[in-house]
Amino acid sequence: MSLKLEILSESALGGRRARLDLPHQVVETPVFMPVGTAGSVKAVAQDVVESLGVQIILGNTYHLYLRPGHEAIRRMGGLHRFISWPRAMLTDSGGFQVFSLSQLRKVTDEGVQFRSHLDGSSHSFTPEHSIDVQVALGADICMAFDECTEYPADRNRAEESLRLTMAWARRSLNHFRTHRESVVWRDEFGGRTQSLLGIVQGGMFADLRRECAERLVDMEFDGYAIGGLSVGEPRELTLEMISEVLPLLPRDNPRYVMGVGYPDEIEQYAKLGVDMMDCVLPTRAARHGLLFTSEGRVNIKNKQYAEDRNPPDPNCDCMVCRRYTRAYLRHLMQAGEALSGTLNTIHNLAFYLGIMERVRDELAGSVAG
Amino acid sequence: MSLKLEILSESALGGRRARLDLPHQVVETPVFMPVGTAGSVKAVAQDVVESLGVQIILGNTYHLYLRPGHEAIRRMGGLHRFISWPRAMLTDSGGFQVFSLSQLRKVTDEGVQFRSHLDGSSHSFTPEHSIDVQVALGADICMAFDECTEYPADRNRAEESLRLTMAWARRSLNHFRTHRESVVWRDEFGGRTQSLLGIVQGGMFADLRRECAERLVDMEFDGYAIGGLSVGEPRELTLEMISEVLPLLPRDNPRYVMGVGYPDEIEQYAKLGVDMMDCVLPTRAARHGLLFTSEGRVNIKNKQYAEDRNPPDPNCDCMVCRRYTRAYLRHLMQAGEALSGTLNTIHNLAFYLGIMERVRDELAGSVAG
Repeated sequence: MSLKLEILSESALGGRRARLDLPHQVVETPVFMPVGTAGSVKAVAQDVVESLGVQIILGNTYHLYLRPGHEAIRRMGGLHRFISWPRAMLTDSGGFQVFSLSQLRKVTDEGVQFRSHLDGSSHSFTPEHSIDVQVALGADICMAFDECTEYPADRNRAEESLRLTMAWARRSLNHFRTHRESVVWRDEFGGRTQSLLGIVQGGMFADLRRECAERLVDMEFDGYAIGGLSVGEPRELTLEMISEVLPLLPRDNPRYVMGVGYPDEIEQYAKLGVDMMDCVLPTRAARHGLLFTSEGRVNIKNKQYAEDRNPPDPNCDCMVCRRYTRAYLRHLMQAGEALSGTLNTIHNLAFYLGIMERVRDELAGSVAG
Repeated sequence: MSLKLEILSESALGGRRARLDLPHQVVETPVFMPVGTAGSVKAVAQDVVESLGVQIILGNTYHLYLRPGHEAIRRMGGLHRFISWPRAMLTDSGGFQVFSLSQLRKVTDEGVQFRSHLDGSSHSFTPEHSIDVQVALGADICMAFDECTEYPADRNRAEESLRLTMAWARRSLNHFRTHRESVVWRDEFGGRTQSLLGIVQGGMFADLRRECAERLVDMEFDGYAIGGLSVGEPRELTLEMISEVLPLLPRDNPRYVMGVGYPDEIEQYAKLGVDMMDCVLPTRAARHGLLFTSEGRVNIKNKQYAEDRNPPDPNCDCMVCRRYTRAYLRHLMQAGEALSGTLNTIHNLAFYLGIMERVRDELAGSVAG
């Protein structure tokens, strides 16, 4: 067995309160997954991430493949053990970062050739290679290798991109099925192994999205993601694409919308039936001094906070809001202190996790599924 | 009452196991004081600093005066409250950083004119101004404004520098005595207030050091520091200067050697009767990947640790050594992750604090004083 989704209740809108049973953790969903790019949720130690109640984090295959390397991580016992994270983990396919970070990429039906953004060295990712890397990393959930269609993309471009994504999905799945048993922690978990999610692309064309979803469902992935969103399109379009796809996905598999979003977005999508979301926004914005609070966004660098003795968010009881003032957080930022990124990140994560906890509570009050 | 030192036992070598009663904390000595330059022990959150058992931290008057400013900190309730540090705190006089960091300084009998290393703005510190700033910051212990004699310095230069330090010590003490009552937290602590330590200078001339110590003792400071050490001189000279001065200092006042040192040094000096020490070494070296361990120094950047599954120090039970491997710490450093500085610093501080704890235990076995 890889993953198992137990739906506890469902709302009229389609929202689901569920339990996602993964080898390393039973994850209460809907869930927000902090991004731990290179094996660290940036600036926050693992015990603090745990104490925030984080159930699952995301690792970036592209970054970890380049440094320290997936074979090294496999030899170290897999990514969980390497970074000392005992709870659940998901890795992306590496595709998105190849397209957004690397140089001189060349896309063929076979895969993608690219140069490392670190040292310019040449590499290539194919669906098979992405899966090999992800099996070596050993996350609970792996992602099919896809092409994230850029925005805007015309119909021809979206169709061509989708053709590639579909072929790669098939190859990813075939390779995964023959290699998933070799994950390093399999014996430790009674023979349980990794899961693979397919990714719905199709640009901003509803019919392409629907076609993609249906074909992926036919392949019987362990779950389904919706990718290629939050790439610059208006929010209405994001919502439309999600709304087109969700009804086509099987009820008993997890649904993951990748790379979204703002606090109100993750709440909205969760209530529509999205089980999993990830985004760098709370962590990246934190490092730039942008705090999400119950009173709206706070740019902690602003001079108005220089002597503000209030906590970052008066309605938040996270460890940062309980202990520190806006004035101190502003000072840390002004002084370039490393603690600034740490404290800001802890608060923003607490805020995002708090939203999901509230949504779960609301959904738990819905009719049992 | 400002401070009170209760000696619990003394060794034949002069080492003392004591309790230093300060308004915010009873400090078990000998004690190592981590440096919290700009209101943060760099990269480590206050709750972690507390959980390490840190009893007293040091703040830098020069940095805090420039940013966010001592008046702002006073309005925010003093430095303890501003940074949310409930235990003891010591501020230096600002002199050392004026001499080491600022530009275009001009020294007169009156004081020092200098330009900020942050924005080139003009400022001056006099003994009176340094005390005003330190009273505004409100540390438990303040330091007299002195000139840290550089190394090497010939006898004429050391004498001239000492003349300045002595005159400034007198002025610091006079000003402190008439202003110490205005510290912001005085009422909160039953009328207790700050303490002032004088600083023994004199370059590497034993007779100048002795003269300085005797004259400072005549002035009746609350305690005595030995400054101008670890400025490039050989270790034998450091030890000689400390050994010359200690016997001249009153038994019942705390003794503080400023800015030292390596692990074996702090152990040695503590056993000779030094009660307090501070140094940026464990925290600064940590950020550059240098770990102090029971097996010697570990440069965690080295390739040999790439797949080393051992903890940083196999004989250490700090939260870092209990959870992480050398391989992971190396990876964090290689990847430029902020967590690197945090974890390295936590271990190094734990190592330094562990040394002091061991010395205290050893001294506790000595004949009662």
